[in-house]
Amino acid sequence: MNGLFSKIGIIGKPGDPRVASTLNTLAAHFTSHGLQLVAESRTHELLPEGMAGASPLESLGEQCDLVIVVGGDGTFLGAARTLAASGVPLLGVNLGRLGFLVDISPDALLDTVDRIFAGDFDEEYRFLLSARIGPTAEHGAPSRALNDVVLHKWNTPRMVEFETYIDGRFVNAQRSDGLIVSTPTGSTAYALSGGGPLMDPALNAMLVVPICPHTLSNRPIVVSGDSRIEIRLCGEDHNHVRIACDGQSDHVIGAGENLYIQKSAHPVRLLHPKGHDHYKILRAKLGWGGHPSL
Amino acid sequence: MNGLFSKIGIIGKPGDPRVASTLNTLAAHFTSHGLQLVAESRTHELLPEGMAGASPLESLGEQCDLVIVVGGDGTFLGAARTLAASGVPLLGVNLGRLGFLVDISPDALLDTVDRIFAGDFDEEYRFLLSARIGPTAEHGAPSRALNDVVLHKWNTPRMVEFETYIDGRFVNAQRSDGLIVSTPTGSTAYALSGGGPLMDPALNAMLVVPICPHTLSNRPIVVSGDSRIEIRLCGEDHNHVRIACDGQSDHVIGAGENLYIQKSAHPVRLLHPKGHDHYKILRAKLGWGGHPSL
Amino acid sequence: MNGLFSKIGIIGKPGDPRVASTLNTLAAHFTSHGLQLVAESRTHELLPEGMAGASPLESLGEQCDLVIVVGGDGTFLGAARTLAASGVPLLGVNLGRLGFLVDISPDALLDTVDRIFAGDFDEEYRFLLSARIGPTAEHGAPSRALNDVVLHKWNTPRMVEFETYIDGRFVNAQRSDGLIVSTPTGSTAYALSGGGPLMDPALNAMLVVPICPHTLSNRPIVVSGDSRIEIRLCGEDHNHVRIACDGQSDHVIGAGENLYIQKSAHPVRLLHPKGHDHYKILRAKLGWGGHPSL
Amino acid sequence: MNGLFSKIGIIGKPGDPRVASTLNTLAAHFTSHGLQLVAESRTHELLPEGMAGASPLESLGEQCDLVIVVGGDGTFLGAARTLAASGVPLLGVNLGRLGFLVDISPDALLDTVDRIFAGDFDEEYRFLLSARIGPTAEHGAPSRALNDVVLHKWNTPRMVEFETYIDGRFVNAQRSDGLIVSTPTGSTAYALSGGGPLMDPALNAMLVVPICPHTLSNRPIVVSGDSRIEIRLCGEDHNHVRIACDGQSDHVIGAGENLYIQKSAHPVRLLHPKGHDHYKILRAKLGWGGHPSL
Repeated sequence: MNGLFSKIGIIGKPGDPRVASTLNTLAAHFTSHGLQLVAESRTHELLPEGMAGASPLESLGEQCDLVIVVGGDGTFLGAARTLAASGVPLLGVNLGRLGFLVDISPDALLDTVDRIFAGDFDEEYRFLLSARIGPTAEHGAPSRALNDVVLHKWNTPRMVEFETYIDGRFVNAQRSDGLIVSTPTGSTAYALSGGGPLMDPALNAMLVVPICPHTLSNRPIVVSGDSRIEIRLCGEDHNHVRIACDGQSDHVIGAGENLYIQKSAHPVRLLHPKGHDHYKILRAKLGWGGHPSL
Repeated sequence: MNGLFSKIGIIGKPGDPRVASTLNTLAAHFTSHGLQLVAESRTHELLPEGMAGASPLESLGEQCDLVIVVGGDGTFLGAARTLAASGVPLLGVNLGRLGFLVDISPDALLDTVDRIFAGDFDEEYRFLLSARIGPTAEHGAPSRALNDVVLHKWNTPRMVEFETYIDGRFVNAQRSDGLIVSTPTGSTAYALSGGGPLMDPALNAMLVVPICPHTLSNRPIVVSGDSRIEIRLCGEDHNHVRIACDGQSDHVIGAGENLYIQKSAHPVRLLHPKGHDHYKILRAKLGWGGHPSL
Repeated sequence: MNGLFSKIGIIGKPGDPRVASTLNTLAAHFTSHGLQLVAESRTHELLPEGMAGASPLESLGEQCDLVIVVGGDGTFLGAARTLAASGVPLLGVNLGRLGFLVDISPDALLDTVDRIFAGDFDEEYRFLLSARIGPTAEHGAPSRALNDVVLHKWNTPRMVEFETYIDGRFVNAQRSDGLIVSTPTGSTAYALSGGGPLMDPALNAMLVVPICPHTLSNRPIVVSGDSRIEIRLCGEDHNHVRIACDGQSDHVIGAGENLYIQKSAHPVRLLHPKGHDHYKILRAKLGWGGHPSL
Repeated sequence: MNGLFSKIGIIGKPGDPRVASTLNTLAAHFTSHGLQLVAESRTHELLPEGMAGASPLESLGEQCDLVIVVGGDGTFLGAARTLAASGVPLLGVNLGRLGFLVDISPDALLDTVDRIFAGDFDEEYRFLLSARIGPTAEHGAPSRALNDVVLHKWNTPRMVEFETYIDGRFVNAQRSDGLIVSTPTGSTAYALSGGGPLMDPALNAMLVVPICPHTLSNRPIVVSGDSRIEIRLCGEDHNHVRIACDGQSDHVIGAGENLYIQKSAHPVRLLHPKGHDHYKILRAKLGWGGHPSL
């Protein structure tokens, strides 16, 4: 292994018993090649004593040249949200089931990793969203999302009503179950369930998808990745919505507060085995297979 | 006015200031013709002293030959759920905006009412759904819905997972935001937002619509109105769903409980002005208008 | 083999080399049990000399107690359109790939057939559509369809415009690429591609699906199976449409002619192995599999 | 009127009797201000003798500083396809019904025009597509489209089968009624009928929408505006498709030929009255109106 990456961070999906063996295979391989290993704190407990240093997830990026995430797309999303700002490249290893983000399978793991360490990889940047809740777009700490920021109804069987503004322009008022604002990365996730299109992951665009809108003419809208999106709740409906980032940690909107979404300043840097093909993954995951025969 | 209807029940949309004048117009008209009037208890407060008797909604059907509902489709749904079992016919008067169920407008109200009292009306029956929650289909008190019974996720940003059985046969397991079981009447309501088809209101069929399903191949299913539908939650997801009937009164599903839905024994009987045309209402409400020009 | 079926008709998919071996297996089995065999004329050429009588498809139903169709759903559709009127039951054998209608696979073929001949089968009736083109609904010879009657644009890149009437009532005028009128059987075929719902095959209902409609509020409509549907072309658009029944034989509409669709008087009678489960086939064909994981 | 525009081209919708009065109003206004007028040849016949020069559409751009198109979006599309390469700015005047491209209404026409001539306008560029048919992407003369290039089935009731490649990568094989490749401008046209999303008109992206695809997992895809799209027909299906650009002039694909689509080198330059708001037009055209109430 050459000197391309010398300090390797490692993160495993928490609570999944299948993770440990892949982690140990990787760790043994790296240490036998004299590479330095730093494991995310909970992941550290899954490794043999003394094999790796430990670090909280938050500071893993600053300490490493590369971070390997072992788990599913959900684990990868969490790592990306936290580590994007550090600029460290991420590599995703799955647990047997191909993911959109974790595209290295445990079979032939070390061969694939060796080739990547030899510089034989493709690199891409995926942008994240930054969501703020407050009376203006400048208030509050931003939350990040690699897939999507979702405003969804909460504690009510009724639709909620809100207005959407893009770059300061009024788009529409809608009554619906909520709204999905998705990156191209997120276009294969919840936005797809809501009827949105697939998007080339490299596209500088955001997708705005109404969830079960009340009127038939509300459709998904694709806007520039540089747009600023603002959602204003109507009446008392702020009491009946929550905001989720990548399906995590529901945020409350207070009276007089709005939801502001824009591209985050820091994209995440992904490494893939050379020859990575997004459409091949799409075909596998969506069952497009070869020539169709229903 | 002939003797077709002699004891008239009357229900107004609660809390809507536009209701009182229509109620008073109707009440004055009926009493001047010597008809007996019974107002639902809260509606009674909106009428002049001594003009009408008062009755709780629950017993209004047994006391009357006809019940007139003044309000929107929502008010009518509530009246229908409670009064269907009594077999009393219902007549819907709107507050200026055409509804699917309240199709008599305040303009020319008395003329229309007089013609209906002269026997010049169309009559139709719409079936309701009966929903029970319990370990078996025989447990618990049924809730009724004229539009739909909806299982929807509650207090969680994540999808829920459940199995659907129709007439005892396993249909599928799905992960989604929930499931809509709709009557033909409800096919213009929430089911339409979820991507379901429109249905002829007289059809003996139910519509099963997944809400934002995780897999692309989940589609609305139309089954017989005599089918029995059973929904079984997976894992601990019963903690994250609620059941709404016509968007009302969220019911909890306990551990070991399922949701059972079937046609209610008692349909509701609707009167319309002669020549009532469901497609005309659809054109007006969906903006189909005449010949299209986007 | 008992006397339930004694004269067996047999039809093979034309031009498919995989058909002959299944046909011969079936024929040898039946003749060894002393049953009489009549093969559709082209199918007859695939069987050894003297093994079976020959008959045109049109008269096969009158001569047999049961007709076995070997091929795909398309072959079965053709047999059903022709043989429905005779009332003969049909049994579908596929060529290795499960169909909605041809649900017996070549594996364990003889066992399955023996059980059916022993009376161990499920029986169902599926209705067909009857389509007529003419100045009124009484003109012209009807064409039949087990899946769907489709009005589609022809020889033009532009949308066509037409009016739909159901049971004599105007539904709407639309500009679109055409219209699909489907039976429940056809709800898994072209209507599904057009955005229609799945339908219980036993339902007495028809599905009306606009193809790429110009206005967003046009949706599939489910109406009674006893409804009469009429399509009137606008302007000169009759020059730019054709009518297909089960995707076959395009019919022209002349000036002053309309398309009339209603249920055909003769349903087709299908036999299935005991325990036939439509939802099981749906799960297999739509990839619903077990519990979802995109 | 200042010297911003001094030689004005003018195009009217052919064969529409409402066009002449708007044309004459404009022509009289311009000549009274000493501006030079050149009318497209057929439009020239609608103007009084001697009021304007005449020019074929093809050379109008080179002769003028500004071209005004009077008609509907269809008229504007044709003008844009022909004139984009000249770089001349276009201004669209409608005939009473708001269009996406012809957004100046005949009411207050001269006031609006005067303000635009005074420099009080917004300007935007919209890219066109270039479509070639041939054995490679370098063959054949390109056709242009401002809305969409559509491959659609022709003279057959059956679906056609083809493969899609984006930037040389295989995307999928599909059986469908065809494929729409749309610009952001075209996202409100045929692509919307096919289930595509709306797109910000300034976005550098193309939309690929399958028409009634055979498998449920085929969805619209949004790709970079700089992508090169290639469609390869399967089997003999080249005999059963045609290619339309903006719904015009169907092109044949020969055996061994493919369809190649990419961004055209020359965008069209549009002028709008100051304060032009695409979302306002969307609200008006899609009936989003104000706050929803089905």
